[in-house]
Amino acid sequence: MRVVVVNVNTTGSVTEAIAASARAVAAPGTEIVGLTPRFGAESVEGNLESYLAAVGVADAVARYAASGERFDAVIQAGYGEHGREGLQEMLDVPVVDITEAAATTAMYLGHRYSVVTTLDRTVPLISDRLLLAGLDRRCASVRASGLAVLELEQDPDRAVAAIVEQARVAVEQDHAEVICLGCGGMAGLDATVRAETGVPVVDGVQAAVTVAESLVRLGLTTSTSRTYAAPRTKKITGFPLEMS
Amino acid sequence: MRVVVVNVNTTGSVTEAIAASARAVAAPGTEIVGLTPRFGAESVEGNLESYLAAVGVADAVARYAASGERFDAVIQAGYGEHGREGLQEMLDVPVVDITEAAATTAMYLGHRYSVVTTLDRTVPLISDRLLLAGLDRRCASVRASGLAVLELEQDPDRAVAAIVEQARVAVEQDHAEVICLGCGGMAGLDATVRAETGVPVVDGVQAAVTVAESLVRLGLTTSTSRTYAAPRTKKITGFPLEMS
Amino acid sequence: MRVVVVNVNTTGSVTEAIAASARAVAAPGTEIVGLTPRFGAESVEGNLESYLAAVGVADAVARYAASGERFDAVIQAGYGEHGREGLQEMLDVPVVDITEAAATTAMYLGHRYSVVTTLDRTVPLISDRLLLAGLDRRCASVRASGLAVLELEQDPDRAVAAIVEQARVAVEQDHAEVICLGCGGMAGLDATVRAETGVPVVDGVQAAVTVAESLVRLGLTTSTSRTYAAPRTKKITGFPLEMS
Amino acid sequence: MRVVVVNVNTTGSVTEAIAASARAVAAPGTEIVGLTPRFGAESVEGNLESYLAAVGVADAVARYAASGERFDAVIQAGYGEHGREGLQEMLDVPVVDITEAAATTAMYLGHRYSVVTTLDRTVPLISDRLLLAGLDRRCASVRASGLAVLELEQDPDRAVAAIVEQARVAVEQDHAEVICLGCGGMAGLDATVRAETGVPVVDGVQAAVTVAESLVRLGLTTSTSRTYAAPRTKKITGFPLEMS
Amino acid sequence: MRVVVVNVNTTGSVTEAIAASARAVAAPGTEIVGLTPRFGAESVEGNLESYLAAVGVADAVARYAASGERFDAVIQAGYGEHGREGLQEMLDVPVVDITEAAATTAMYLGHRYSVVTTLDRTVPLISDRLLLAGLDRRCASVRASGLAVLELEQDPDRAVAAIVEQARVAVEQDHAEVICLGCGGMAGLDATVRAETGVPVVDGVQAAVTVAESLVRLGLTTSTSRTYAAPRTKKITGFPLEMS
Amino acid sequence: MRVVVVNVNTTGSVTEAIAASARAVAAPGTEIVGLTPRFGAESVEGNLESYLAAVGVADAVARYAASGERFDAVIQAGYGEHGREGLQEMLDVPVVDITEAAATTAMYLGHRYSVVTTLDRTVPLISDRLLLAGLDRRCASVRASGLAVLELEQDPDRAVAAIVEQARVAVEQDHAEVICLGCGGMAGLDATVRAETGVPVVDGVQAAVTVAESLVRLGLTTSTSRTYAAPRTKKITGFPLEMS
Repeated sequence: MRVVVVNVNTTGSVTEAIAASARAVAAPGTEIVGLTPRFGAESVEGNLESYLAAVGVADAVARYAASGERFDAVIQAGYGEHGREGLQEMLDVPVVDITEAAATTAMYLGHRYSVVTTLDRTVPLISDRLLLAGLDRRCASVRASGLAVLELEQDPDRAVAAIVEQARVAVEQDHAEVICLGCGGMAGLDATVRAETGVPVVDGVQAAVTVAESLVRLGLTTSTSRTYAAPRTKKITGFPLEMS
Repeated sequence: MRVVVVNVNTTGSVTEAIAASARAVAAPGTEIVGLTPRFGAESVEGNLESYLAAVGVADAVARYAASGERFDAVIQAGYGEHGREGLQEMLDVPVVDITEAAATTAMYLGHRYSVVTTLDRTVPLISDRLLLAGLDRRCASVRASGLAVLELEQDPDRAVAAIVEQARVAVEQDHAEVICLGCGGMAGLDATVRAETGVPVVDGVQAAVTVAESLVRLGLTTSTSRTYAAPRTKKITGFPLEMS
Repeated sequence: MRVVVVNVNTTGSVTEAIAASARAVAAPGTEIVGLTPRFGAESVEGNLESYLAAVGVADAVARYAASGERFDAVIQAGYGEHGREGLQEMLDVPVVDITEAAATTAMYLGHRYSVVTTLDRTVPLISDRLLLAGLDRRCASVRASGLAVLELEQDPDRAVAAIVEQARVAVEQDHAEVICLGCGGMAGLDATVRAETGVPVVDGVQAAVTVAESLVRLGLTTSTSRTYAAPRTKKITGFPLEMS
Repeated sequence: MRVVVVNVNTTGSVTEAIAASARAVAAPGTEIVGLTPRFGAESVEGNLESYLAAVGVADAVARYAASGERFDAVIQAGYGEHGREGLQEMLDVPVVDITEAAATTAMYLGHRYSVVTTLDRTVPLISDRLLLAGLDRRCASVRASGLAVLELEQDPDRAVAAIVEQARVAVEQDHAEVICLGCGGMAGLDATVRAETGVPVVDGVQAAVTVAESLVRLGLTTSTSRTYAAPRTKKITGFPLEMS
Repeated sequence: MRVVVVNVNTTGSVTEAIAASARAVAAPGTEIVGLTPRFGAESVEGNLESYLAAVGVADAVARYAASGERFDAVIQAGYGEHGREGLQEMLDVPVVDITEAAATTAMYLGHRYSVVTTLDRTVPLISDRLLLAGLDRRCASVRASGLAVLELEQDPDRAVAAIVEQARVAVEQDHAEVICLGCGGMAGLDATVRAETGVPVVDGVQAAVTVAESLVRLGLTTSTSRTYAAPRTKKITGFPLEMS
Repeated sequence: MRVVVVNVNTTGSVTEAIAASARAVAAPGTEIVGLTPRFGAESVEGNLESYLAAVGVADAVARYAASGERFDAVIQAGYGEHGREGLQEMLDVPVVDITEAAATTAMYLGHRYSVVTTLDRTVPLISDRLLLAGLDRRCASVRASGLAVLELEQDPDRAVAAIVEQARVAVEQDHAEVICLGCGGMAGLDATVRAETGVPVVDGVQAAVTVAESLVRLGLTTSTSRTYAAPRTKKITGFPLEMS
């Protein structure tokens, strides 16, 4: 099967890292295709950027689909971002958000989980998405490492140290029993964080790959009975995006 | 003061109706400016269209601001739509969503309120926004009249009949004591619905005008301490929109 | 229009301060009338006093109405106090509680808000009222400055210092993005607290004035369909109060 | 021990019925004293009357205490009424509200319980008190029989029929497994309702007697550490009530 | 009446201590019978042991009933343990869990209560049972003393010191106004903890005795209408237990 | 990998059906081993039987492990049953409950899901497990078909008809967008129910197979930091079970 993994920012190197991480757990026979939006911010760290990302991601997927390529599932690889519901309406294949994939995976592993993310300003976005997804009650905390998305790439050692510190506080003070790495760009850091904290660490992208594969294997896709029915036929202006 | 009222769809006649409704309750000295997005759907009735609207609205306001016009507050005149948080980050004046304005107004008037909206498929969008806003617990129900947004304009009599019917069910079965008209395009129908049901009826656009004026008069604007801090300086591609 | 602002305690100087604060934001053409209960405690800092206040406030308003004076809305100017529902049954004009007005106003300004009040023992009263009002989920905390109601008047400098200290903790530890001043007697302190904390500060009395004016302007008043229907005709003993 | 059972309305025959019901389950050695407020409504069916009752009840108990009589516990025998918290501050013996006693008792008997009360307008008062008490989650419904408080006494047969009808709906539609009789004046109807519905029926007054006796026997009384600390010393005007 | 108090572990000395504690508050005429399971762990400090206890307790009660002895109520004397619902199906007399009895008793005494238990690993079990029982919202915290169940017996002084320390933190930081002793084996420690903290302290076993007596006196027993109906007739293998 | 699927009842034909269903979706290379408890009921339809099942399942898995067989994950194939937490403590491989697997899977497919189960009396058990798992908020309803577990096998046509009827009500009245088949014994009915209702239908056993495989592939297993730490070393009597 082919699983499309869409980055939420416009930075190609992040897409590559995400796709590599996805490939590392993909089942034999699963092809991972990474997409980078043409539209939006180089990193997504707030609501305005996240709304741009929602449209940038939808545009990237719509263009990929229009190119005649076939695919079996889509992963939205942004943590705490807007947009997943729109993709569900647009596509007839399953859509998996990494925030939710990390949470449902973590809930099989411990009584409560925490998320460690990047900047403090993104904490409420993640909390809001978990609330909407109905996956918040066993969330012990969402904690910020204080590092920006692009700093994760630039200084991985510092990133790990900051993430481990918050993960430890989550375990010791918030009684988290599992840690979710709360940023698509944290791919590959899970082993270190686990070694340092002693609790299971969930990478959202990798969790999402297994969820997407599972849905495909079960022959299940998004319900079209109500919320995620295909958009009604009507006049749309400017989408897919007209970009030079 | 000047209050900008942004429609969420691209249909100018809806913008005009919304602006007229806003003007009908604006205080002396309040100027209402209606904006219509260049981007998005002619009516917003689902998540994908709502995400397009989030960007279309942000674009319309950004362009208006870039034109040198000054304004004191912005009203997002879509019921149950995405996007308000992005505007809050982008602007240093208060932003008021009509879904929330209707709800907080209704909560001063009765123990529980219901929303009567357009199509059934938009019910979960409204419920989700009320949940996120923390205004859901006193919401008795969100009910659909079954009419599409643009049908409201085309056949006002049928619209009123369908809305009144659902409002009655909300009062009698769901124990709503107040009805919120759940669509920006329902402006002007409140008197009829009230006469038919005997309970207070809240129009979101009009409620939002008074909330916006109140915030301005109190000298209050969005907190920049965390969630709604201005976006960080970074490379953004394609926004404001490049449209021919 | 005429808006009646009822103090919850029997201390006239507090009524005057509240009324002055209300006047400072009232729209042109809005007359503010301050009422002081004849019955109850000189300051309200607990449940028994709050229940006395509920009756003292109802009595004051009933007598004012019986005197033939007309008014367009009533503000109950006690933070976290009982009684608002009774006024709603008794009157056919809107009734606004300052606890709720502060909360709904704050919710337009930030993701979460905190309340800073007087004595620790009043914290649960405020929490309970927010719970009942369905406005609790975005409340980050209710914090006590440790000062009694009447100390606010006697030693404003100390009051400001204690309130600022708790407001800072609310912002830094509880992640509040807006502060509500949780006592009718804190009128006038908002500018200082804002300057010291950098976040918006909401004064409940002033917020309530704008809510009351808004409801009147929108032509809305309390629903009589169920919870707040006028009391049934029956024998009442001792009310309005027989006081020498 | 002596347990004071305070009626919330001014109708002596209701007090007598309540006291008789209490005596029917009191342990050997427990004396039941019935008190009737001098102040308030002849029946309590709304918020204003309930706030009057809060003060009328406090006054009746304060006068009883001032008379030199000793007692070991107080039961507030109104369903869904305000006032219990004030009594807790005022007294150093346990205070038991019949709404809460019925609920905690019912929760030992079935997965979910319903309350059947008098008029529809009192349903939200009961719901609110259960919410505040943290006893709402296992409440399947609060249903109104449509009978006024004093009609219960005047036409017991019709009362039973109306209550049984709603109890049946609660069991069959709302999945209640236990019924609470939601009015102090329903004392004595439990056997009939049980026979007709086949589920356990809890009378709040009788349940409260056993709770009060239990607390006394366990040597427990209200915590004075925070919420229910005795009122601070201050000037109170008009309370206890000055009545001719 | 005869009340059976079933220990959840296989340690007879714990059963004796529990039964003695129960007898200390039992009403005149109430006989307390202590039962010790033949099956399970010597102390219950986790989920597996708790599930074993559920069956061990059911077996002990079934055997006692089969022996021809009559009894009026059963108390399951384990804090936070599984199994109460099974007993309710099996018996036609009331069943009282000490976790719930402590909570409902505490809720009559203060605005919020905390539980102080043994090992940290049992905290989530207690939280889960309070959640299921719908008694969690006024629970300020569940805190662990760090002592194992059997250490309570072996070193009572150290136990008291550790429990008092956590109770103090619960009162001062978590705003608990009442403390529940969260282990059947803590019987007899309540007076000391109360003296040291100044707040009411509830012993679950003793609270459960009064609840059980109350239910019996009120003539109430478990509803058989749905959740706790008697098991259907079917083939059961191995239960009651075949033990040598 | 080898995944052990444990039936919760003692009926071998049910185990075979469950295992066959599991095999139908297992990835190449995944071996499914079905286990049948020696202890407990021939069908599990209530709390007592469910507690017996918890021990019967733990016993079956413990014996299998003691036999020297190795396995990579365990699926508890009972819907709404007790026991999963005990297995998690006992094992160092992931444990997946089919109730939870169905729910997390359904939540990727629609805004709300419903469960259709067997007898009405098992509805509260399922609701309780979803509440504990923190997966209840997006559950629209749990509905009973009225058929006993073993009737599903005996009369599949009637079973399908009854399930389809409740599924339709769930979609039309409760606004479910996805249906979960709420019984391990409903394996194989999903295609028919989907064809009749038009919404995605999730079989818990099959969903659990993909979740278990995913966890194994991600190298994740239960956290041992707190709730699910291995049991402490202590004296256990009678477990694993002594059965003739």
